[in-house]
Amino acid sequence: MSQIYAVINGQFVQEQDAKISINDLSIQRGYGIFDYFRTRNNEPVFLQDHLDRFYHSASVVNLPVMQSREELAQLIGGLIAKNNLPHSGIRITLTGGYSDNGYTPATPNLLITQSAYTFNTDAFEKGLRLVTYGHQRQLPQVKTIDYLQSIYLQPFILEHAADDVLYHEQGTLRECPRSNFFIVTKSNEIITPADKVLKGITRKKILGLQGLDVKEGTVMLEDLRGIREAFISSTTKVVLPVLAIDGQPVGNGRPGRVAAEIYRRLIEKRGGIE
Amino acid sequence: MSQIYAVINGQFVQEQDAKISINDLSIQRGYGIFDYFRTRNNEPVFLQDHLDRFYHSASVVNLPVMQSREELAQLIGGLIAKNNLPHSGIRITLTGGYSDNGYTPATPNLLITQSAYTFNTDAFEKGLRLVTYGHQRQLPQVKTIDYLQSIYLQPFILEHAADDVLYHEQGTLRECPRSNFFIVTKSNEIITPADKVLKGITRKKILGLQGLDVKEGTVMLEDLRGIREAFISSTTKVVLPVLAIDGQPVGNGRPGRVAAEIYRRLIEKRGGIE
Repeated sequence: MSQIYAVINGQFVQEQDAKISINDLSIQRGYGIFDYFRTRNNEPVFLQDHLDRFYHSASVVNLPVMQSREELAQLIGGLIAKNNLPHSGIRITLTGGYSDNGYTPATPNLLITQSAYTFNTDAFEKGLRLVTYGHQRQLPQVKTIDYLQSIYLQPFILEHAADDVLYHEQGTLRECPRSNFFIVTKSNEIITPADKVLKGITRKKILGLQGLDVKEGTVMLEDLRGIREAFISSTTKVVLPVLAIDGQPVGNGRPGRVAAEIYRRLIEKRGGIE
Repeated sequence: MSQIYAVINGQFVQEQDAKISINDLSIQRGYGIFDYFRTRNNEPVFLQDHLDRFYHSASVVNLPVMQSREELAQLIGGLIAKNNLPHSGIRITLTGGYSDNGYTPATPNLLITQSAYTFNTDAFEKGLRLVTYGHQRQLPQVKTIDYLQSIYLQPFILEHAADDVLYHEQGTLRECPRSNFFIVTKSNEIITPADKVLKGITRKKILGLQGLDVKEGTVMLEDLRGIREAFISSTTKVVLPVLAIDGQPVGNGRPGRVAAEIYRRLIEKRGGIE
């Protein structure tokens, strides 16, 4: 098996040497942002969208990216060439750096890692079961490294025989920890929560699909009664139908027509499945 | 200058070699807990209280501590002997470990670091200015590494000519990011927020002081009008008077009698100032 490389601050390093000092502000104070995109046949999928969001996230949390967009794209290209993992996920992380006082951000550390990823084509048919939970993510529009609440909730999710959690803030639905949420109403409107959520790249692509009545809006917990379908979107999963929420079947409890159509069109848009 | 050591999973390593792999869940997902205590003349201050809280935090977030309490105390003692920094701060961090899938916690990494700390005896007279902000910390009773919101708010704090932020949840006061908050009412009751805050060790010591009317209770934003004093407590600062909140002076705008007495008694309790 060939060696996998990562990038730390512009340097290619073998995976087992990819380390940072324990005084980095990600380890000390959970301070950092990231982005994650897929490659297909060694080509990044929707790279410009992900870079847009990465630089935006960094800017909101006041972390300067020391690499220009061109340098970053070159590093990513170099990593793809070196690793030759045609179907993969690439993660770019920007941390708070080696802070002098353990609190104030310093020069950020930029970390790029790549790992093979094989798309699970059975996942769509299998679908997802969600359990709702009252929580509002902090800095929701920034892709921060903060997954404290959702990892903490893993036992809760298991206890409720669910696959993931769906956050609501006092009854207003938001998102899942790593995906956006959509409903299809009785009148075939497709609605995704507008506010206080991470603006996913797949979500953006869905909102841009022609010929479908997709919009951002307010979705309340009680709106879930009587919806036709629900589904989630993410870079990793593309689209997965939600078959049950809080133990209650959604629609007829099987993958829906709208989710299937959106899934098909997104796969087409990104050039195919792998 | 002599070499400073840290401990990683039971091994003493020189500070510049104290590194962990970038796939640790603290870096990837902000998942970890810690505790922090002071040493005075090479003796840990209130070590048992801090170890109690450390093991409690670990247990709540489902991270097993691979070291027994005795082993941990021995490692701390070894580090103190090796580094010989009589007046210092020691931080024990437990991270989510090297997760296989970048999400599910693995065997945690235990990190112990020590740094010299000289108590600033002028800080009490200088006091603090706070600015209030609506935010509820997630998992408030666990000392997690999550300081995303407070580090993000540093520019906001500067803009408001304040030294730190005081969180409230819809008007109910909670805490500062790294300290607990107390008020002294007109009738000389000393009250600290009871719920959804980190139970600080210094806070606990204050609640245990004899002969003072200190209690946990509900403190609302509007209760700040007309209080006699306010102060914060923390392991690092012990007690600091709050001289202004949202630009309004607290009491006569100078360090108060109650804060000064509590400060004096706490310094006595920990064996002196350094």
